[in-house]
Amino acid sequence: MQTFAKPFENPAGSPIRELFPYLSRPGIISLAGGYPSLSLFDTEGLAAASQKALMDHAASLQYGATEGSVPLRTGLVQLMHSRGIGVDVNDILVTTGSQQAFDLLIRVCVEPGDAVWVETPAYPAAIQALRLAGAQIGSVPVDEHGLDVDALAQLLQAPGAVKPKLLYTVPTFSNPSGALLTQARRERLVALAVQHGFLLVEDDPYGELQFQALGVKTLCEMGAQAHGKASPVVYLSSLSKTVSPGLRIGWMVAHADILRRCCIAKQTVDLCTSPLAQSVAAHYLASGRYGETVVRASAEYGRRMTALADGLTAALGGRLRWFKPRGGMFMWVEIVQTVDAQALFLAAVEQGVLYVPGSAFYPGLPNTQTLRLSFAAPSVADITEGVQRLARAMQALPG
Amino acid sequence: MQTFAKPFENPAGSPIRELFPYLSRPGIISLAGGYPSLSLFDTEGLAAASQKALMDHAASLQYGATEGSVPLRTGLVQLMHSRGIGVDVNDILVTTGSQQAFDLLIRVCVEPGDAVWVETPAYPAAIQALRLAGAQIGSVPVDEHGLDVDALAQLLQAPGAVKPKLLYTVPTFSNPSGALLTQARRERLVALAVQHGFLLVEDDPYGELQFQALGVKTLCEMGAQAHGKASPVVYLSSLSKTVSPGLRIGWMVAHADILRRCCIAKQTVDLCTSPLAQSVAAHYLASGRYGETVVRASAEYGRRMTALADGLTAALGGRLRWFKPRGGMFMWVEIVQTVDAQALFLAAVEQGVLYVPGSAFYPGLPNTQTLRLSFAAPSVADITEGVQRLARAMQALPG
Repeated sequence: MQTFAKPFENPAGSPIRELFPYLSRPGIISLAGGYPSLSLFDTEGLAAASQKALMDHAASLQYGATEGSVPLRTGLVQLMHSRGIGVDVNDILVTTGSQQAFDLLIRVCVEPGDAVWVETPAYPAAIQALRLAGAQIGSVPVDEHGLDVDALAQLLQAPGAVKPKLLYTVPTFSNPSGALLTQARRERLVALAVQHGFLLVEDDPYGELQFQALGVKTLCEMGAQAHGKASPVVYLSSLSKTVSPGLRIGWMVAHADILRRCCIAKQTVDLCTSPLAQSVAAHYLASGRYGETVVRASAEYGRRMTALADGLTAALGGRLRWFKPRGGMFMWVEIVQTVDAQALFLAAVEQGVLYVPGSAFYPGLPNTQTLRLSFAAPSVADITEGVQRLARAMQALPG
Repeated sequence: MQTFAKPFENPAGSPIRELFPYLSRPGIISLAGGYPSLSLFDTEGLAAASQKALMDHAASLQYGATEGSVPLRTGLVQLMHSRGIGVDVNDILVTTGSQQAFDLLIRVCVEPGDAVWVETPAYPAAIQALRLAGAQIGSVPVDEHGLDVDALAQLLQAPGAVKPKLLYTVPTFSNPSGALLTQARRERLVALAVQHGFLLVEDDPYGELQFQALGVKTLCEMGAQAHGKASPVVYLSSLSKTVSPGLRIGWMVAHADILRRCCIAKQTVDLCTSPLAQSVAAHYLASGRYGETVVRASAEYGRRMTALADGLTAALGGRLRWFKPRGGMFMWVEIVQTVDAQALFLAAVEQGVLYVPGSAFYPGLPNTQTLRLSFAAPSVADITEGVQRLARAMQALPG
């Protein structure tokens, strides 16, 4: 058989996949996963929605429109309104998870060699999609208050800087940083996008998982209010963190021209997102159970985050630096004193706790003195024990 | 907002989408759709499978492996065995419809400017996917016995011919030609692929919809028997025509290296195919109802095809040329006497019948004296009446 010149390897790697072998160790506690907690899903409500969907043969079992079904888009319009974003059915493209929305966007907007900037640390699958597309990936640093807009402004004004076509950010409870972008920074960011002519990709899968009131608006809302149809914001979201990842239902809101191009691309990619999954999602949204489910899940995630933060303070207070996220699923941790990252990871596995080494989240040279802890899936008891194990792993290190 | 240099329009067009406005005309009979018949789906069996899936929370509602779930791949292995193809779970990549399988294959194998050949007339979404990938598309003619392998051999040996990386064909009841590739041609085709070093893409969504015994093997089986791991065949299939398109479940069987690359690409495309849909499909396959459903549907499609063929013979015998397909969903028709294709289409709509003009199925210069009739979705009564209307439309033409 012929071999192909085209290199198609896994450049960024999938951190979760690489950790798979460790996950099967007996008794291991995983603070590594990016999965929401199965026990917090509204399984009863989903079973009822599924039963309704299966009675609706034409909607659930036949091919559907590439844009997504009207009942689902109608439900998503309501959901967007509850987030402060005024859209109608025609502004929404349903996608197979928000991952597909980003991939479609790259397909229609990014040529090999194009500059695309990402907040850093960043979601690894976004980095990987950009690498496979041949983009020149630039990094914009993130701190406790989200994307560093001063640093961004400097990068944009640097002599000889190639301006990005796209900037990718998760402004609300980022993966992996957990940071919430402040309202002032949001305003500056939208203004910079307009000034410098780049698309601002707001990926928002976690925004509703709030532990307290936020006092910020989505970039999407702000872009539309300030610039109407000329808003630079492309908004991506998903039901994976709030309802169930099993549905693979995401969506995109963008300028009509971008949406049209993405829809054409989607025709050749998968024709349409599973009509059965769309129908289950539409019936679930129509059932009115969504809001209550999200409030209940958020409260539990908040308890788990507090357990993690308290545990870290008690056991590792002086050795690690972190901040308490105000929502989402992740905590980003920096190690104060330099350690051998590989040795720490192996010691942690030895002690029976798993996390994702921070190097997975950098498109370029990584800060190896970082790690991502997820508090979404493990119980409070497991989190508390997991932190103890992490502390023992650090103590076991030489030096 | 910036505009993009990258052209991302709809070059091939989606014939079905363009016909949408006509479909809503009151009383229109559509012989245009590429959809299977909703009334032949096993809705009871699917409801039962869905109920089981919804009780299986971890399998249906959480994220799943990119390769596809083990229960579904186990069911597909059995299905492949029933088609004479010996594979195991690791040889299968589950995709979001077989459309995604072809798209992933293009992603990992085709660079802009690469030569890819397709049987012609060909499935329009395949043409479109190749156009969007920037492939140089070549045509290999098809007759009543499928791809013309003599013509293919000549094209491959032509002086200065750029050999294709891929050849795309639907050898069993092609869309749109309805042709079944003979066993002798299959043998020649696999040999040519090996000799000239191109991948042979066997798209097989219709193969089980047989109206009579076939006496042919899949290219996939033949390639594996003759060449083992070095088989040039990439096999794509789908549950969309036999179970339900609403699931969007397809799969690919290919050389391990290709499968691995496609799996990496799929991670960035949609992470995984809907675990809920996969779980419903797995439970459905495990229920043992699949075989009986396909036999029942095939028998009905056969009756509809016969009604179409009989109607055409009676009403338009001398004016059209066609052959009776031995399975599948489509009949390909050539008009003996030259007519104005656009005028015929408008006259047919005027009479209340819809078909897909043949020009949609050509990557290059079309034969406009062709049309595709689908007998899958309409009832026998509607087919009979639809043919009468088509005859009136032809009589209404000048000349």
